[in-house]
Amino acid sequence: MTVKIAPSILSADFARLGDEVRAIDEAGCDWVHIDVMDGHFVPNLTFGPAIIKAIRPYTTKVFDVHLMIDPAQPYIEDYAKAGADIIVVHAEADKHLDRSLQLIRSLGKKAGVSLNPSTPETVLEYVMDKLDLVLVMSVNPGFGGQSFIEAQLEKIARIKRMIGHRMIDLEVDGGVTADNAHRVVAAGANVLVAGSAVFKTKDYAANIAALRR
Amino acid sequence: MTVKIAPSILSADFARLGDEVRAIDEAGCDWVHIDVMDGHFVPNLTFGPAIIKAIRPYTTKVFDVHLMIDPAQPYIEDYAKAGADIIVVHAEADKHLDRSLQLIRSLGKKAGVSLNPSTPETVLEYVMDKLDLVLVMSVNPGFGGQSFIEAQLEKIARIKRMIGHRMIDLEVDGGVTADNAHRVVAAGANVLVAGSAVFKTKDYAANIAALRR
Amino acid sequence: MTVKIAPSILSADFARLGDEVRAIDEAGCDWVHIDVMDGHFVPNLTFGPAIIKAIRPYTTKVFDVHLMIDPAQPYIEDYAKAGADIIVVHAEADKHLDRSLQLIRSLGKKAGVSLNPSTPETVLEYVMDKLDLVLVMSVNPGFGGQSFIEAQLEKIARIKRMIGHRMIDLEVDGGVTADNAHRVVAAGANVLVAGSAVFKTKDYAANIAALRR
Amino acid sequence: MTVKIAPSILSADFARLGDEVRAIDEAGCDWVHIDVMDGHFVPNLTFGPAIIKAIRPYTTKVFDVHLMIDPAQPYIEDYAKAGADIIVVHAEADKHLDRSLQLIRSLGKKAGVSLNPSTPETVLEYVMDKLDLVLVMSVNPGFGGQSFIEAQLEKIARIKRMIGHRMIDLEVDGGVTADNAHRVVAAGANVLVAGSAVFKTKDYAANIAALRR
Amino acid sequence: MTVKIAPSILSADFARLGDEVRAIDEAGCDWVHIDVMDGHFVPNLTFGPAIIKAIRPYTTKVFDVHLMIDPAQPYIEDYAKAGADIIVVHAEADKHLDRSLQLIRSLGKKAGVSLNPSTPETVLEYVMDKLDLVLVMSVNPGFGGQSFIEAQLEKIARIKRMIGHRMIDLEVDGGVTADNAHRVVAAGANVLVAGSAVFKTKDYAANIAALRR
Amino acid sequence: MTVKIAPSILSADFARLGDEVRAIDEAGCDWVHIDVMDGHFVPNLTFGPAIIKAIRPYTTKVFDVHLMIDPAQPYIEDYAKAGADIIVVHAEADKHLDRSLQLIRSLGKKAGVSLNPSTPETVLEYVMDKLDLVLVMSVNPGFGGQSFIEAQLEKIARIKRMIGHRMIDLEVDGGVTADNAHRVVAAGANVLVAGSAVFKTKDYAANIAALRR
Repeated sequence: MTVKIAPSILSADFARLGDEVRAIDEAGCDWVHIDVMDGHFVPNLTFGPAIIKAIRPYTTKVFDVHLMIDPAQPYIEDYAKAGADIIVVHAEADKHLDRSLQLIRSLGKKAGVSLNPSTPETVLEYVMDKLDLVLVMSVNPGFGGQSFIEAQLEKIARIKRMIGHRMIDLEVDGGVTADNAHRVVAAGANVLVAGSAVFKTKDYAANIAALRR
Repeated sequence: MTVKIAPSILSADFARLGDEVRAIDEAGCDWVHIDVMDGHFVPNLTFGPAIIKAIRPYTTKVFDVHLMIDPAQPYIEDYAKAGADIIVVHAEADKHLDRSLQLIRSLGKKAGVSLNPSTPETVLEYVMDKLDLVLVMSVNPGFGGQSFIEAQLEKIARIKRMIGHRMIDLEVDGGVTADNAHRVVAAGANVLVAGSAVFKTKDYAANIAALRR
Repeated sequence: MTVKIAPSILSADFARLGDEVRAIDEAGCDWVHIDVMDGHFVPNLTFGPAIIKAIRPYTTKVFDVHLMIDPAQPYIEDYAKAGADIIVVHAEADKHLDRSLQLIRSLGKKAGVSLNPSTPETVLEYVMDKLDLVLVMSVNPGFGGQSFIEAQLEKIARIKRMIGHRMIDLEVDGGVTADNAHRVVAAGANVLVAGSAVFKTKDYAANIAALRR
Repeated sequence: MTVKIAPSILSADFARLGDEVRAIDEAGCDWVHIDVMDGHFVPNLTFGPAIIKAIRPYTTKVFDVHLMIDPAQPYIEDYAKAGADIIVVHAEADKHLDRSLQLIRSLGKKAGVSLNPSTPETVLEYVMDKLDLVLVMSVNPGFGGQSFIEAQLEKIARIKRMIGHRMIDLEVDGGVTADNAHRVVAAGANVLVAGSAVFKTKDYAANIAALRR
Repeated sequence: MTVKIAPSILSADFARLGDEVRAIDEAGCDWVHIDVMDGHFVPNLTFGPAIIKAIRPYTTKVFDVHLMIDPAQPYIEDYAKAGADIIVVHAEADKHLDRSLQLIRSLGKKAGVSLNPSTPETVLEYVMDKLDLVLVMSVNPGFGGQSFIEAQLEKIARIKRMIGHRMIDLEVDGGVTADNAHRVVAAGANVLVAGSAVFKTKDYAANIAALRR
Repeated sequence: MTVKIAPSILSADFARLGDEVRAIDEAGCDWVHIDVMDGHFVPNLTFGPAIIKAIRPYTTKVFDVHLMIDPAQPYIEDYAKAGADIIVVHAEADKHLDRSLQLIRSLGKKAGVSLNPSTPETVLEYVMDKLDLVLVMSVNPGFGGQSFIEAQLEKIARIKRMIGHRMIDLEVDGGVTADNAHRVVAAGANVLVAGSAVFKTKDYAANIAALRR
């Protein structure tokens, strides 16, 4: 199985985001992971649709937009228009998850659900047929510098079994490094989000390659 | 009286914010106006502390940070650390306005209050001695492309009288153009925020000069 | 000055609202007052757009829709589409009052603001040019069977002075009866909302006439 | 097993609700399903206790009141007094579900829990002995014109197994038509809510009969 | 005019509150001031009705209960039952202030409104006839160890003028000491809340006497 | 296995809490259970950190602090400083449960999660390695005088199996009496919270002994 690498621009240089996005594109990333935070679902505020729109011309790669916002539903259309290809909402921030997923697909985008570390995968059971992606958070969203939570490997494996032969990407975000990436993939993930692991040194291509092994 | 021009980076190119900030600096702006929105106080989400920190090295001019977020108080310290020189909170988003202003000053920053178009200036009456700046919104915050609300001229004039000889800047944001800037200044404002009026053409220096008249 | 009578359908028979609306029309009412409550701004839930739409065909008289809901702004368009002619929002439920009034007018409807008994009229000062109606609550919204609050007469008089020669209706709602209507009008009101005063007996025409004096 | 048909008055003519309720009673409905929405749990506001009270005299059939409101608990008593026979709260809107169910029963009413399409049935596990009804939403609540979500058939079947020999009604609401009703019943449901399927033509009796097959 | 001294039990020893209350009673206090905080209106949580009830038997002096909670209205009855004589709500925490004051009086208690330092006294204008007490906060509620805010002297003076000959107590809370008490009283206050000023040394009687001068 | 008895000071005499805490210590209790309620997560407000700090010197026994507050996370540090040994948060009040547990342990305290009666134990699945205690509520939190909910015995048994050989205490709170304590322990609990069962008569030692059997 091919593993996709999705560098998170949260670790990029915000003063020159266009260049950074072009650089990870040229360095061979598969997707661009975009962390939207609102200071309410998580205690950090990053950026919103206008920034996504501004960097959209710098690459044709998939924009994988992770909404750490509550509520998400009223804003989904804004992110679709700004250039998102995949829109991921949090199960914990949405009492009407099925409706959000229907809305995302009705806008012609791929629909994802993200789970906080403590959230069991049972919340996915009745929306499997509306999902294009599941995002397992292997650290708590909204904070940098955390270590990979080992207990998530079991969750990844269980979701992999729930997915079965469905065409659903299984993405993991948080503390993924060249050292543990193989275990994450072995558990079932096929998309790895990487922040500092990609941006820590200037040689993004080498860093991405290291993650791919 | 000297009028200060504070271009709002909301109209800048977010893909190359560092360059944009350097460009308005070199074009002769006085301050850099930074519009923080959280998708809750206003239905738009722009950016937060990490972006402010990233652009801080590109200029030594004053960073005038306008918090359109609710609540603001728990996040004031983050903006101080990110590089703000002035921190402006909204009267409508703070039941404990005096406390926020004390907090901003205790962090060594200048403290401001912003008023929505419908908010009367009476909310300032008991915090005048803790203020370094009043920001009068002459359009509704959170939306672009609005026209200057004429009724705000009277509010500006009244606040100017409340200020008297105090060292408090009186800033106006929304729909300010080369055509109406003289009336805004005549009413009492000494700091003008300008978005598209500065960034509409590449010659930022000329646009800033036009605003200064 | 002509006084308009606006019976509140809150006192009508909800099992046959169409007939009730037709009956007050034929009995000579000027407007139909419609009290929308959401169980959040006030601890009572009445009805929403679908009911307004259902009764719209029963009269051509003005539908004066009083939104006791928080937030109101996301729903204004629904009420415009349902058949409202005037849409009234509460000053206490809207931090962006100017924006709501602009929105109502942009939908081709008349825009109003309502004030709770304890709310001072200063909240209207900077939106007078966007108002078609001010609604003074002379009882606390959300509850029946309350007596007219005398202190509101002074507020009515002050708002009347603020209005001056502007074309703004001044409406009063709460505890208005044939006994006190003359004082309310003398203070400056030109639209009287009446609930039980109209619906208390079957002779709606006589009850409306009594209010007119 | 006998299947009960519960027409939802959301599809009735709100201008003559009393007549409509009498008509579905005479047309042979089993229960009257009443959809209360507050514009907060769902983005639609329908009606509250006063309307329920007004239509109560028009039939002696069971009033099955579905509270799509958040919070529900402070208002449960109002709906009991207004004439509800069954009061159904949403699992997603209640962190203290056991307490709500105890409260409903203490008022002498039957107690139900409703599940959004994405909500797993595990939320019912520890309240089975306090339940008189489970309501499975087979569309997302708050919106009309949606299609039956097939994934709910599995949920219905599982809840049926959880119920076992307990005296608990299993009701399904959303997109139920004469075409799919047999599958819903086969999965385990014994109460079918029907909106447009009953009210789409004037012959309510025929429409109800078609649903019963 | 006689000045009343109301020691705040917030500065008492919570391990032996009964003794403390008896001690300030014997030391000659006029009222007992009780600061209820909920961790929402202010970022501190102190205590609620059960503690008030527990200390009620230790004195017959007036219990002056200051509710720094939001919402307050649903809990007013609990505080009345617990033994409050005066119940004070915050203007900033109540959109329906008139209704709260009516409720407090209907329970046979005296009704008060408290104003944060930044809140103008105009919020009192239309409820003067329902007030038994106004509480001016001369520090920001919820925090200890703050200094008296001088700008409040003007507010006290203005409220004193609004009160005129009405029987309304004017109470001041925050940073009141033996050194500034005379200025607070000169401005118009007749009730002084004192925390550490009373409890700082064991000789409560002397401390209270010092405040009285 | 040894059973620990944790008297809840909610049933103690709040006027002399220090003495009460010393008395249960001398009567042989194992832990002191402290119920913090904020009037938001539950409709009751009890007490906060200052009271915990005040009673801390009266015993060296474990302070087991049960936070029935929402949000809990911003306040965890306050309770750690006030003298808590164990800090227990509610699963229903925390979308970021893993983060809260990490925070509690980072402060050097033991970390617990409490479950409302209707909450399934699946919410614990991915945080088992960060837990020192699970608290099963066998009545609905926030109210006194309720009976033990029998359905919780099955939940206790299942959590006991999840715990296996981990060093995690399993505590039960609500309606535990000398009559049913053996069944609670048989199901797997090793810590029993007792309120009126301990404080109902003056002989606390006898009451604690009765619970121990």
